[in-house]
Amino acid sequence: MSREITIAIDAMGGDFGPEMVVPGCAIARERQPDTRFILFGDESRIAPVLDAHPELARASTVEHTDVAVGMDDKPSQALRRGRWRSSMWLALEATRSGRSEVTVSAGNTGALMAMSKFCLRTMPGVERPAIAAIWPTLRGESIVLDVGATIGSDADQLVDFAVMGEAMARALFGMERPTVGLLNIGVEEVKGLEMIREAGRILRDSGLPLQYAGFVEGDDIGRGTVDVVVTDGFTGNIALKTAEGTARQMAQYLRSAMSRSLLSRIGYVLARSAFDTLRAKMDPRKANGGVFLGLNGIVIKSHGGTDAEGFASAVALGRDTAVNGLNEKITDDLEQYRRDQDISLKVAGEIAS
Amino acid sequence: MSREITIAIDAMGGDFGPEMVVPGCAIARERQPDTRFILFGDESRIAPVLDAHPELARASTVEHTDVAVGMDDKPSQALRRGRWRSSMWLALEATRSGRSEVTVSAGNTGALMAMSKFCLRTMPGVERPAIAAIWPTLRGESIVLDVGATIGSDADQLVDFAVMGEAMARALFGMERPTVGLLNIGVEEVKGLEMIREAGRILRDSGLPLQYAGFVEGDDIGRGTVDVVVTDGFTGNIALKTAEGTARQMAQYLRSAMSRSLLSRIGYVLARSAFDTLRAKMDPRKANGGVFLGLNGIVIKSHGGTDAEGFASAVALGRDTAVNGLNEKITDDLEQYRRDQDISLKVAGEIAS
Repeated sequence: MSREITIAIDAMGGDFGPEMVVPGCAIARERQPDTRFILFGDESRIAPVLDAHPELARASTVEHTDVAVGMDDKPSQALRRGRWRSSMWLALEATRSGRSEVTVSAGNTGALMAMSKFCLRTMPGVERPAIAAIWPTLRGESIVLDVGATIGSDADQLVDFAVMGEAMARALFGMERPTVGLLNIGVEEVKGLEMIREAGRILRDSGLPLQYAGFVEGDDIGRGTVDVVVTDGFTGNIALKTAEGTARQMAQYLRSAMSRSLLSRIGYVLARSAFDTLRAKMDPRKANGGVFLGLNGIVIKSHGGTDAEGFASAVALGRDTAVNGLNEKITDDLEQYRRDQDISLKVAGEIAS
Repeated sequence: MSREITIAIDAMGGDFGPEMVVPGCAIARERQPDTRFILFGDESRIAPVLDAHPELARASTVEHTDVAVGMDDKPSQALRRGRWRSSMWLALEATRSGRSEVTVSAGNTGALMAMSKFCLRTMPGVERPAIAAIWPTLRGESIVLDVGATIGSDADQLVDFAVMGEAMARALFGMERPTVGLLNIGVEEVKGLEMIREAGRILRDSGLPLQYAGFVEGDDIGRGTVDVVVTDGFTGNIALKTAEGTARQMAQYLRSAMSRSLLSRIGYVLARSAFDTLRAKMDPRKANGGVFLGLNGIVIKSHGGTDAEGFASAVALGRDTAVNGLNEKITDDLEQYRRDQDISLKVAGEIAS
């Protein structure tokens, strides 16, 4: 398991840049010593922070550039204005050329996705990449995709997401046969949108070596009903942010309830370790990192507003995808799927003729 | 405020029928004595429960029918098979004919919506009704619509939802100028689907007397960023169920954290009143009841699996809509909106000619 992984880091990404990113890498390196870093960005800001982390410094190369993509830059702006020299682009280019195995950035999602597509290109046969999120559930963790790369996916794209998400569950969770569900609503006679039903038919009938579990609803995500939840990027993004908002809301309710009276404050002190467990469980930093799937190279998008601890989670996630050969698994599965499709089309053609 | 309201009840709806519905009405009647009920359903099941609630019995009429819509009946089945005699239909018919001011049912959503459209008909100019949910937020309560009646709404329908939801916030929350946001995602350069952007343009430029606050994201719902969140029924349903699932998940985390050690259990006992407050705050029964908007009559859909306490909330919500003239407000606002639209089209035509 323990082979050395090189990770390309966009050191200028996120709300705080190198002052957050570099300490994040230091935490990740401490936990996973077999990790090397190429840090792209403004050397005058990176060097002083790196000086404070000599262990990381020994495992890192700094490549200077003074161009950074702004957190509010539109993707088209980012692509137009000196993109070739930006820390984001250079970090992607390192993975494209094979100098690194994965790229991690806390930069803005739209620009990072646009540049990733441009630099790494989509895998053969994949029309649109997806962003996969790891979602804590009552049963452990599930993968939800797409959470924001695409809007209004058609049935074929949803099927691609299912294949990619399933490969990710096998790679990251070590599962042999993860279950896959399509996110839908259950109240209409004709359930959900046509493309979801069509994707359901393909997943059921295609003979894919994939455990298709049917439609799931919004509350099935947190319940962990299936290991992989497939949806288009619009719905997935709304679901992800709604869940984040609800978790914050519950935490806020809990805080104000516990500080209401003397007794509840004493109770809080006594039960502190329980609350610490709870806080750790609900810590959004632990689940930090969206995985861009369907590109010729893995890219991890960290939350822009996260701290060093959160960035370290994104780095660890990136390392995991590389160690477990996520992209090779996806490539193999997609090839297998296309082959099976071709065969069934051929068989269908022969029967028809 | 305190005038007598008559409510038509589908006593056979929900997972438990009259044994849950009738005690629910009894709780509602106890809290709001100026409420009368017409209970539709199987008299042999309703009567014994009613006997246990003499105060409710004095305020109720029972109208017998032995036809009930099943919880799993498809809307088309429900409409085909003896619908005219079902408790659901009769409860809607009572509101249509003016014998009652609102209908409450815990029956299946698809059948109830199909029958409501058929029986009550949509308001003039409204193409599709919506289901509005009251969503607890950090600032109080917001209205979210549509949470499941429509799939893939166009811009005009979203604007109708905005007008109806805003009227509901004024009627139920007593607000003068509620704010309205369109649910969208924030990561794409061209944000969201075309119909949402088009609806945004109409709401901004139409001169509607409505405080349009722009796009909001999933986590803005729980934050209470706006008073009315507008979305299509597919997205709204996913968001609602995802939030319910997340709240349940957090409650489960909390329960297992608090029972882990002796100290945490003692802490729990000391802070019990705080936990009771929290539990009351998170009680899904308090927010029970989806309001069907855009029909010539108000229909409240209670959760099918709720208990008497939850059903009482749905009844109270129904009473509220009637007391505050929700449907009159919606009718007035939609008329005003159509008039303004006609004028601006005319002006635009005159300028163009």
